[in-house]
Amino acid sequence: MDRLTTAIEARHNPSVIGLDPAAPLIPQQIVASYGDEAADTADDPAEIGALRLAMAFLAFNTAIIDAVADLVPAVKPQIAMYEALGPRGVDVYAKTCRYAHQHGLYVIGDVKRGDIGSTAAAYAHHLSGVASLRADGEPDVYDPWCQDAVTVNPYLGADGIAPFTAAAKQSDKDIFVLVHTSNPSSAQIQELELHDGGRLYERVSSLVESWGEGSRGDYGYSRVGAVFGATFGEQGAALRDRMPHTMLLVPGYGAQGGTADDIADLFDGDGRGAIINSSRGIIGSWRSSAEYAATLSARDALEVVARSARSAAIQMRDDLRHVAYR
Amino acid sequence: MDRLTTAIEARHNPSVIGLDPAAPLIPQQIVASYGDEAADTADDPAEIGALRLAMAFLAFNTAIIDAVADLVPAVKPQIAMYEALGPRGVDVYAKTCRYAHQHGLYVIGDVKRGDIGSTAAAYAHHLSGVASLRADGEPDVYDPWCQDAVTVNPYLGADGIAPFTAAAKQSDKDIFVLVHTSNPSSAQIQELELHDGGRLYERVSSLVESWGEGSRGDYGYSRVGAVFGATFGEQGAALRDRMPHTMLLVPGYGAQGGTADDIADLFDGDGRGAIINSSRGIIGSWRSSAEYAATLSARDALEVVARSARSAAIQMRDDLRHVAYR
Repeated sequence: MDRLTTAIEARHNPSVIGLDPAAPLIPQQIVASYGDEAADTADDPAEIGALRLAMAFLAFNTAIIDAVADLVPAVKPQIAMYEALGPRGVDVYAKTCRYAHQHGLYVIGDVKRGDIGSTAAAYAHHLSGVASLRADGEPDVYDPWCQDAVTVNPYLGADGIAPFTAAAKQSDKDIFVLVHTSNPSSAQIQELELHDGGRLYERVSSLVESWGEGSRGDYGYSRVGAVFGATFGEQGAALRDRMPHTMLLVPGYGAQGGTADDIADLFDGDGRGAIINSSRGIIGSWRSSAEYAATLSARDALEVVARSARSAAIQMRDDLRHVAYR
Repeated sequence: MDRLTTAIEARHNPSVIGLDPAAPLIPQQIVASYGDEAADTADDPAEIGALRLAMAFLAFNTAIIDAVADLVPAVKPQIAMYEALGPRGVDVYAKTCRYAHQHGLYVIGDVKRGDIGSTAAAYAHHLSGVASLRADGEPDVYDPWCQDAVTVNPYLGADGIAPFTAAAKQSDKDIFVLVHTSNPSSAQIQELELHDGGRLYERVSSLVESWGEGSRGDYGYSRVGAVFGATFGEQGAALRDRMPHTMLLVPGYGAQGGTADDIADLFDGDGRGAIINSSRGIIGSWRSSAEYAATLSARDALEVVARSARSAAIQMRDDLRHVAYR
């Protein structure tokens, strides 16, 4: 997590913007502006709608990345939003990761993959890329995804995690393992009380801390972080103590109801150890902008999207500085 | 699960072939034969190796599908193997699903997705497709993935499952929720003893049974199945009793060590209620064929792959008939 922490320190900003586009989050004229190009490019007429939206996702994301790249250390594209459009959407996911990476952002691929060892080894190519040859015949690695970290599901246990930690070490990347999510039914499984005491997510948090041993970096955090929902403020301090070497990725700020106070205890006192995600609160902020009007051109609408996202990102940064740096 | 059960009955064969290609499972001359086409099509020279392999995956899969489509009711492509090659691999995953679907096979997309409600709703488009318009302007649905069912991870609880069950009902499709996997460290989380008694996977199995209420079909099985690893034979009978309306998808047969006897108890006595997956044991069976030689042409090697897969699939079917139909 050294690269991520360095990026956070450089911008004095422990926040990450979730690039989770969806039709209702994109001004309609931007989507419409890709109608002709989608019609020309589609393999099948039925595909045009999905393709047009995928093209709009990329324009929307690149405008936001341009607007915030100097301000935030990281972005977190949620692959589900892209998979919803089929393989053409997945292609835009990878292009989004590449564009963000090229603009100096640390890219957290929110893919929540998880499977048994041999299959997890295949998924771990999300981090390690594909063996390739250079033009001169020398071995090389091709990285189609351009993610600096991915999120991983713990339900399969250690041997579903090991291929990801190996790939992370090999490529100087990181993973974040799901521990506790902020959805209402997370309690149904994650909070089950165990016979030996404690709750399931607490056991998972201890496992995550142990999976990171041997990969601690200059700031004391291992390559194995944890995803921990923002709306469980009371448990935050205990969790921070149980996972002293685990970087926390905290979704749920803003639109999902988490506030800055909820997450204060998750930082280590030096403003390190946690990074807070907001998605709709940033990328959808144009919807409450007085500058936006349905009559704007696609180009002008994109500019409003970008300016609004930048303002919202500055607001979030300033809010978080108050709680992270004490 | 009516469509799946009908297909199993028609072929008297409760087996599914895992389409999990990987470089070591594909004769080298098949991969090599796509060198020129990959070089011509790649956007970036670094991508050629991945693209060549992706093209070989599709040729390999279609040869196997052609060879077994009259014999088995279903195939289960594991998306991890395709994601390992980047977006070009994902495109081949979707093409594989489409080809299998067009050849009358029930396609189980082994994607093991899982996330909070709003994100799960995006993933559920794997089943429900994308809203689209017909040429005459009427609303339509475009299905880029062509999966009849997908596998889902339960760690997020009910609201991570609900969007999938809604999409399944809407599109006459199904889901399979991970309950117990066959990897060594599955015990680490799945077998934790709970304070209220029982183990975590038993609790999850009860949840899965409850999530299926309201979607039972003509054979008594709901749209919510369960993934249950084959190497836990002793627990199988208890699990079958706890989940009387839940179709079981059982990986781990063959290469992962599970035998026909291990899974006998998972059937309901009428040969229904379970479908058994083998991947490498079928698609990699050419490696022990006397017909195969490294000197074969790509075309001849594909024919050996297809004939070997068909023989192995017949062997598996006959083995399973002994235990499934008692």
